Parts: sequence; C-alpha cells; structure tokens
Amino acid sequence: MIGPSTYYRPEHRAALDAHTGELVDRREAVLAPSYRLFYAQPLEFVRGAGTKLYTRDGDDYLDVYNNVPSVGHAHPRVTAAIAEQSARVNTHTRYLDASLIDYAETLLAALPAGLDTLSLTCTGSEANDLALRVARHATGNRGVLVTRHAYHGVTAAVAEVSPSLGGIDALGAHVQLIAPPVGDGSAMVQDARRAIDALVASGDGVAALLIDTAFASDGFVAPSPGVKTALAELARLVRAAGGLVIADEVQPGFGRLGPALWGSALHGLEPELLTMGKPMGNGYPVAGLAARRSVMEPFGREVRYFNTFAGTPVAVAAARATWEVLHDEQLPAHAEILGASLLTGLDELATRHPHAAGARGRGLYAALDIVDPETGAPDETTTIRLVNALRARRVLISASGPHNTALKIRPPLPFSVGDRDRFLTELDAALTELAR
Amino acid sequence: MIGPSTYYRPEHRAALDAHTGELVDRREAVLAPSYRLFYAQPLEFVRGAGTKLYTRDGDDYLDVYNNVPSVGHAHPRVTAAIAEQSARVNTHTRYLDASLIDYAETLLAALPAGLDTLSLTCTGSEANDLALRVARHATGNRGVLVTRHAYHGVTAAVAEVSPSLGGIDALGAHVQLIAPPVGDGSAMVQDARRAIDALVASGDGVAALLIDTAFASDGFVAPSPGVKTALAELARLVRAAGGLVIADEVQPGFGRLGPALWGSALHGLEPELLTMGKPMGNGYPVAGLAARRSVMEPFGREVRYFNTFAGTPVAVAAARATWEVLHDEQLPAHAEILGASLLTGLDELATRHPHAAGARGRGLYAALDIVDPETGAPDETTTIRLVNALRARRVLISASGPHNTALKIRPPLPFSVGDRDRFLTELDAALTELAR
Repeated sequence: MIGPSTYYRPEHRAALDAHTGELVDRREAVLAPSYRLFYAQPLEFVRGAGTKLYTRDGDDYLDVYNNVPSVGHAHPRVTAAIAEQSARVNTHTRYLDASLIDYAETLLAALPAGLDTLSLTCTGSEANDLALRVARHATGNRGVLVTRHAYHGVTAAVAEVSPSLGGIDALGAHVQLIAPPVGDGSAMVQDARRAIDALVASGDGVAALLIDTAFASDGFVAPSPGVKTALAELARLVRAAGGLVIADEVQPGFGRLGPALWGSALHGLEPELLTMGKPMGNGYPVAGLAARRSVMEPFGREVRYFNTFAGTPVAVAAARATWEVLHDEQLPAHAEILGASLLTGLDELATRHPHAAGARGRGLYAALDIVDPETGAPDETTTIRLVNALRARRVLISASGPHNTALKIRPPLPFSVGDRDRFLTELDAALTELAR
Repeated sequence: MIGPSTYYRPEHRAALDAHTGELVDRREAVLAPSYRLFYAQPLEFVRGAGTKLYTRDGDDYLDVYNNVPSVGHAHPRVTAAIAEQSARVNTHTRYLDASLIDYAETLLAALPAGLDTLSLTCTGSEANDLALRVARHATGNRGVLVTRHAYHGVTAAVAEVSPSLGGIDALGAHVQLIAPPVGDGSAMVQDARRAIDALVASGDGVAALLIDTAFASDGFVAPSPGVKTALAELARLVRAAGGLVIADEVQPGFGRLGPALWGSALHGLEPELLTMGKPMGNGYPVAGLAARRSVMEPFGREVRYFNTFAGTPVAVAAARATWEVLHDEQLPAHAEILGASLLTGLDELATRHPHAAGARGRGLYAALDIVDPETGAPDETTTIRLVNALRARRVLISASGPHNTALKIRPPLPFSVGDRDRFLTELDAALTELAR
C-alpha cells in the first residue's frame, strides 16, 4: 500500500497553482473525507492514449502505474465497442444475450482447468466478496487464510480480509495471516499449519485460502519452482482441512505476467474459485468469478444472486474488445519480453545506485526495493521522495510492499522499448539526485 | 421479489424455438447456476429506444419493468457522453477531475438537507455496504433495523440485511425486522420499539435503520401524511438509541416518484446517509453514498476507501448526461402526471376485474394487487399467469411484494400517454382472459 505522504495533504495547499488549488478546495468541500489525491502536487489529466496521460497544458506523463487501462488508455477498439453497444441497447442478464455467452465460452476456455462456470460482477471487490460467500456456503466453514499484507477489496466482507488496509477493519479471529511465499516458502507453510490448527480449534473451520497470485501488496513475489512447490503444499493443507482455494487474479490476470495469462497458471495452482477485475474491460466496470460447477451448484440452488449492472451487453462489449485487443496485439507475449528487458535495466541501475537494491518481476509487473545505503534497511522516506521526484519528471509510479519501500511498476501493457528507456533514464536521474 | 416460476425452468425447454433453445443450452453450460432468465419463453433483445425493446425479428416490447434505463433505453445524449469521454480518457479519483467535482456539487445541492459529502461506488450494493460500514464505525454499534421483505443488495454484508433474498443468508440476531409503514404505521413503530430493545439487550446496539423509501420489495408503500408521521417516529426512536438513518434511494431516487426526486423528500426524512444507484447513469455502473460530513469524518480519517472503477471520468459523464436529460426533458414532473393518470386507469380496471384489487403508486412506481376473486386473498399463481400473459402480449412486467402478488410497474420515465394506453389495453385483455 502507498504511504500517506505520497498523497496530497493540507500542508501542500500553499504551493499549488491557482487552478489546481481551486479544484482541490472545491473537491474537498463535496467529496467524502476518505478520498485521496496522489502527490503533493495533484495531477489533472484531460486526455490519454496508449501509455501516456496528458494534462490541460499538453504535457505528457509516462504511465508506469495504471494497470486498469491494460491495453492502453482510451484504446480505440474498446472505446468503439462501448460506444456502439451503448447506442444499441444495454439491458441485463435476465434476458438472453448471445455476446455474453460467447464471451463466457472464450474466457473459460483460457482459464486454469476445472473452472467451468462464470459469474460476472462490476468490481473485483464484488467478485472476492462473492467468492467468500460461495466458499463459506460450500464448506460450511467461516475461517479464511490470507497473506500478511493482502489487499482484496473494499466491501465489508473483503475489507475484513485485507490487512493492508489497516485502520478499523480489525481482523477477526476467523481471519488468519500467513507469510507470503518468499524464500523457500517454508515460513508460509509453517504459518498455514498454525493458522489451520487455530481455525479448527476455534470452531470457525477453514472456508478458504484467498491469495493474490502476484502477492502485489505484499511487495510482489515472482513465480519460481520454489514458490510453486510451497503453494502446492499450502493448497494441499487447506484442502485437507476442508477449505477451498480462491485465486485473486484481479491484479495479475489477463496477461500482465505474460502469455500464461494468470498467476495461477504460472504457479501450477488449480483453484476452485478464481476472481478477476481491473484490466478486464480496460476501465469499464466489469469483473468476475470463475468457479467449478460443483462448488457453485449448492449456492446457485439456494441463493438469489443478481447483479444489476454486471454482465450487461455494454460490459460484455468492453470485455470482449479488451480480450480481442490483448490477443490481436499479442500483449501478453510483449509483456513477457519487454518485462524481462526492463528487469535487466532495473538490475543494472541497482549496481550503480546504492539506494536501489534488487528488482524482481514477471511480465510487466515489477518491484524495485529501495533501501538506506548505510544500513541496507528498507527506506520508506527515500521511496516516497523517489515517487515524487519521478512525478516531477513526468513519470507516474507508486510504492508498495509491507514497508512501502518497493517501487510498484505496472504500466499499461503496450509499454514500448522507448517507454522503457524513458522510464529507466528518469529513474536513473532521480536516483542520482537522491545521492546528492 | 419475483417468484421462481416467472423464470425459465428446464421443463420449459421443449417449447423453445431452435435459436432460443440453443442459446439457453449454451448459456446454462457456462454461466453459474445462480443466473436466472425471465419467463418460460426467455427473450433476447438486440435494440432499445425510449420505452421499447426490440427482438431480432423486429418485434417491439413495451417496457413497463426496467427502472435502470430511466431516461429511456439507449438515450442518445447519455450514449454520446459515454462515447466521447471513453475516447478521451478514463482514469480514477486519485487524479483531479473537474467534471466529478461539478457533478458532486450539483447532486448534493438537490439532496435532502444535511447531506454534504459524496462517495461514489459502482453499484447500489456497494453503496449500501459502505453505508453500513460507515454507520457501524460512527456509532460503534452493530445492529440494523430493516423492513420485513427488504432488499438492499448482494454483497455479503447487505445480503445479510435483505430478508427478501431468503435462502442461506440467514439473518443474524443483530438484524431486526420491522413491518413496512402500511396503514397508520403503528405496527411498524411497535416492531421498532421491540427491535431496539432486543438490540440493546443483546449488546449489538443500534447502528442503523436501513429503509428503501419506496418499500419496493415490501410491495410498495406510497407516501402519505400517516406514513410521514410514522417514519418520523421511527427515525426518532432509532436516533434516541444512538443509531443513524440510512435512506436507500437506489430504486426510488432520481425522480421516479416525481419532482421531489427522492422518497426521503416525500416522507420528510432527513437521513444521515443516503444511497443511490440503478437509474443514476442510465445503465452505466455508477452508484453512490451521500452523507453528513460529521458521520463520514471519523471513517475517512481511519479507513482507506478507494473504489477503482467508481467516479471515473466516464462514470461521471454518464451520470451527468443522465441528470441533464432528466431535467431538460422534465421527466420527474412527467412521471408525476403520467403516473397519476396511470393509477386512475389501474383503479378503473380494478372496478371491472375481480382479480385486480386496489392499485397504489406515486410517480412512475405503482403496484396492482392481484387476488383470488373467491376469497379476496393474495393470489401468486394468478399473478404469475398475468406476468406471462403480458409477455405474450409484448408487455414486460413483473411481480413483487411479500406474497409476490403485486404487479410491479416501473417503466422508463419517458413512458408516454400512448404507452400508458397500450399497457392498460393489454392488461385489460390479459385480466379478461384470466376470468375465462
């Protein structure tokens, strides 16, 4: 999660130009106090294309942050699909719609084995919320295992299993935290044994393991043979205790990590439930839950679930167009190749800059650890300075990880060689400034 | 809620034409078992305009059911706004966006007094889920009062306070049911006293009263001086116990009930929290929570709430265009006048048809009670026959209420005099057939 000081604060008000200051004041007067603005100097974008966002003055910013416009900002094919279907009709899933069926067939065929039914929602939060409801219904248990700094969304039920949110949504005893699969993953497996024992002892039982397959808010964990082995053991333990595996693919899914399309596929995980969201409609609100029919059947029989805006013809048009662009433009393969070269570039920077420790990543999801050169310890203050320095250099980025000390690198997928070079050049310069 | 037999069931399969049958089979193979299709003979619409939906064959259906496309199916101004903004840029609320601020200012100025902050979400479920989180945080209490057949959405937290869903989401002891304000409302007030005592005794305390101001799934209750007095007493009791009032305007809001715009305004309620959704973007997923700053402040200080797809520039473009059309086409005033004349027409039918008991309504939200002529008792079987008979006559309608015996009448707001006459003519004929 991003530390509070990468956000605008009242003490930054005096430094704003007249236009920005007026917008900020008006915004604070009408939006709820939970809203946040990025950067000490907030940004207003009036146009986007590909990997760039443009201000009123025509300045272009390189987007190394936004994973939602995955096939590129304002992609013309996605935009056209939304416009055409909106002008035709937008109803809901209680009428027949051939395009919804086509899309579901296509998507399920590309998912990990066993996932043979689809439920559409509007947001990733709703998808995770539904997955938990289904898992609890199917198992009769209540307990959930999540990683230590997990983030799974903002409904009451998923905020409760999102330790990275902090604040008042204190985790109940039925929510057990485990380490992410770093190193050989043995700490994670050990945590899981303890967690399962605790849930069984308390009577909550194990309903589900819920994991982001990129472990994004835990600071990103790249797939590896060791991680795969550890996750297999984790899944085995959870299933032996009667629980289900929910793979949260809201961030990693749809090719960001490469042609495997899903983190689950890279880890060799075959989850009973898989959730998706953010990049699914390139910004149109569409998300979903894929599940095994055996798990969904009792829920479907007993529970009414109708999500008014979910899976409507326009939502499907956006999702289909995004899917087609993803494949026609071969973005997952591009993400893999470009991502690998980006990682090499980051590692090269780390050899020259004492604040930059190692980088890790897969596809176009990477993290660069920022440390105090004296002690080698994670350094949040420097990370935040770096994020703001890059904003001044017209590069949009943010920080993540348990200590908020990993640069979070997840640009729109059409990130080009030129974009990579521009990013590395600016990062190099910003790191050089830090040393001064 | 709609009874199961207004839905397609496997036993209807044999009667389907080849095209429909194939779509239904393919759909059932890929969508989760919780999906439902309206009617024994499901419908596929490929085009919509105003109050009409069109099949592949060009048959037009009069829409007396869908409240989401409130300013009319595929309204060209809303469609154009979505298309233009999608082609420009769609980011999120952590960058500045003047259009979001403009919209929030406009909307808050039109809401009941005291509601001075806005939070946008994607769905009405998310808005109610957030309202409950805020109310529980603000009061430190957990208990909620809802009406006996309330429906507030599909997240885990709101399904829990939606008795009309039935099924496994058994209501906890912290959810207390009260009568809707029918008659002089004294039953409701009496229930509330008992419910509050129970919540105080159990230690849950009273976090909120959550009411749909149209009492839609309770079968619709029209505003009246008696209802107003009873609701004032209800709100007083809830507040005296430390709870907040949440007005769920997801269905009644945005002018369906007339120029007062909100059910709360008609009832003289001044809720601390007000949720909205369905018609807000004429089908684009946008919903929201308006609240008093004093209630939101502690939540905003301590809890991170960022909803990725909510309040984006495209969502705001859809909501703004819908709002402008609503006012430029004077649809709330039209709803009031046309709705009153529709009610007169329904009452006239009730004098001639023994199955039709009284009608009630306000604006373009009305209910017609269907009874057994012999006993005068609510008659679900006849209601379902009527819904299917009207579908055969190319009129889309459904049923609601505790016994599923109230015809639910809530067409898009540009419902014309001609639409009214067509509806009344077909309803007259369908009621006549019933008597045979």
